[in-house]
Amino acid sequence: MNARPLANTAADILDRVRERAPRVHCITNTAAQVLTANLLLAVGAVPSLTISADEVTAFVSGADALLVNLGTFDAARRQAALIALDEADESRIPWVLDPVFCDRSAARAAFARDLAAREPEVVRANRAEVAALTGQDVEDVESAAFDRFALDNLTVLAMTGPTDIVTDGTKRTAIANGHPLMARATAVGCAGTALIAACLAVEDDPFVAACAGLLALGVAGEIAAAGARGPGTLVPRLIDAVYLLDRHTLATRAKVAGPLDVKP
Amino acid sequence: MNARPLANTAADILDRVRERAPRVHCITNTAAQVLTANLLLAVGAVPSLTISADEVTAFVSGADALLVNLGTFDAARRQAALIALDEADESRIPWVLDPVFCDRSAARAAFARDLAAREPEVVRANRAEVAALTGQDVEDVESAAFDRFALDNLTVLAMTGPTDIVTDGTKRTAIANGHPLMARATAVGCAGTALIAACLAVEDDPFVAACAGLLALGVAGEIAAAGARGPGTLVPRLIDAVYLLDRHTLATRAKVAGPLDVKP
Amino acid sequence: MNARPLANTAADILDRVRERAPRVHCITNTAAQVLTANLLLAVGAVPSLTISADEVTAFVSGADALLVNLGTFDAARRQAALIALDEADESRIPWVLDPVFCDRSAARAAFARDLAAREPEVVRANRAEVAALTGQDVEDVESAAFDRFALDNLTVLAMTGPTDIVTDGTKRTAIANGHPLMARATAVGCAGTALIAACLAVEDDPFVAACAGLLALGVAGEIAAAGARGPGTLVPRLIDAVYLLDRHTLATRAKVAGPLDVKP
Repeated sequence: MNARPLANTAADILDRVRERAPRVHCITNTAAQVLTANLLLAVGAVPSLTISADEVTAFVSGADALLVNLGTFDAARRQAALIALDEADESRIPWVLDPVFCDRSAARAAFARDLAAREPEVVRANRAEVAALTGQDVEDVESAAFDRFALDNLTVLAMTGPTDIVTDGTKRTAIANGHPLMARATAVGCAGTALIAACLAVEDDPFVAACAGLLALGVAGEIAAAGARGPGTLVPRLIDAVYLLDRHTLATRAKVAGPLDVKP
Repeated sequence: MNARPLANTAADILDRVRERAPRVHCITNTAAQVLTANLLLAVGAVPSLTISADEVTAFVSGADALLVNLGTFDAARRQAALIALDEADESRIPWVLDPVFCDRSAARAAFARDLAAREPEVVRANRAEVAALTGQDVEDVESAAFDRFALDNLTVLAMTGPTDIVTDGTKRTAIANGHPLMARATAVGCAGTALIAACLAVEDDPFVAACAGLLALGVAGEIAAAGARGPGTLVPRLIDAVYLLDRHTLATRAKVAGPLDVKP
Repeated sequence: MNARPLANTAADILDRVRERAPRVHCITNTAAQVLTANLLLAVGAVPSLTISADEVTAFVSGADALLVNLGTFDAARRQAALIALDEADESRIPWVLDPVFCDRSAARAAFARDLAAREPEVVRANRAEVAALTGQDVEDVESAAFDRFALDNLTVLAMTGPTDIVTDGTKRTAIANGHPLMARATAVGCAGTALIAACLAVEDDPFVAACAGLLALGVAGEIAAAGARGPGTLVPRLIDAVYLLDRHTLATRAKVAGPLDVKP
């Protein structure tokens, strides 16, 4: 997959999201809820956010994909996540894990590892969070550890950073889109994970869905940053850019390498 | 009431909101809190949002109107809603019910029906939510059911959709303002219900207050959409448009039919 | 300190924030979380927001400053605040108290007074909130009471209003920057208190840190208001203005009087 094929595949996936309006249930942190809902609505999906134990099963059972984000790590959300995962297992609903800030608290890292072992279709994490998940120091974590993490957990790891790396343990794609200003607005990464969930709702191959979601976010972020004076005006422009994203823009802007085989 | 008289009445009501700065207490969902507070501040009201059981009575007792939105259906908000309604009954504070997503969960629908039976001045709901409230299938619900719901619950039903319908069971007004982009940003409908609450705070006739609130939201939404590239830039522009809304704009843009008598 | 020296000092402090990227842990209300995080990211700090009892100690212990805002007064946040303050005491982490709406509920005022007695580096409050903290009627509260409050609690009081007053009980500075539109957008004041926390993270003198934070917010608010049509477009512009704030702008726009000695 070089830039052009992934861009085309991503455009196909976005078309399917817009046609099918999949439901995406999001158990996510309090600072990310609004932007997450807005990015999902912008891309054409239908978000729901409840964490009420009485209702999570009903909402997940009617959803086409599930997002579990650990950015607010309270008892209610932990319980909601476990209820949601039972229903996702039962109803075979694809899900993505975002272990936000699991490098900052041992309790969160332990819970994140337990969830990762439940075979999410995709785990989205930055380098520090992957280090915490794999029990390594962030300075020492080697790139082979990313592939092993994906293999060990039967998942796709979407590791975000200046260049995003997507690996399933046997192959890797690198995506160099995005803009530094995106890291200066809260919850942009979290909401990007929701785009991966929207892609998972209409695409059976989680590796491809993860690549498509990250590419969409990165390209939209570049477009938004080009017109923004700072992180404040970036956010509404990012939502607009996701709403307006088209095949030509994806093809023109995609900076993609791979997938390349991982050397054992 | 044709377009011109309602527009004038709505402008009178907005003038009173700006003069009196009524307090509106909002028990609302986590994704709607910020936009709700911002639309209320923009229109000239003073929002409060606490759901703490220790404080709800004090806040409601000092408020001029109450909003109860079920979009986050957790135990704390359910308890807060019941405490708030006791105080609203006691102190005769007008209130509006927004049974968000009650069509997606049986527990929520049952709670919403219980609250609707407590005679809110206004219930704001979309077609699917009204169907759930009346125990009908959304495909089968007939428009006579809307009028009956209002009569049975001694309330005004403000049913939002491409054309909004306001009925008290004996008369109906239709408002055709608004823009499709408004449905692509989270909580715009919820925040619109808060505008109805602000109108209720300064207007004794709940039918008129409901019409004024929906007209204000619809006209502001059209103005915002005209300058927006997508749902991201729509939202700040919507808040500005509510802040700037004037009599002339309302009169020029209002698309209103009725009130017409409901045929028994 | 006249306008020029404070502007220069504030610029020095902002430079240090951008260089050091201090961590600021925020226990804040649900309506303020996103804007607070975004203003902190814009100024160059790293926000965290958890209120989970399992994690607060770890997050505070790794933070360079702490914000405690009482705008959402639920049991979880009260507990989190007490845990956080124990750790802040232990690890000598500077903190700022924002007793939002403590004039609207007796329970909140009592809790706010208890926290104020724990010697926050800074208390940020409006006139009505200071009246509630000092047990006076807002109409009767005299300006000498502000100074006494600061002295009695060994704190700096940053009292916001059309003109902000900063006092430690022995000296006072007045800052006349800002714009009325800032009061029409929710949580701008709360997020401004977070700027004070960011300044405290890199500046040992809490009087100077409080002045710098309020000046930065006021000047950024003026710049944002100049380009905004209303409170909706004000907010993203405010975030941009904080992000772009420079020494020259601060020096040109600062409207500062003092510090003057408080007459006993």
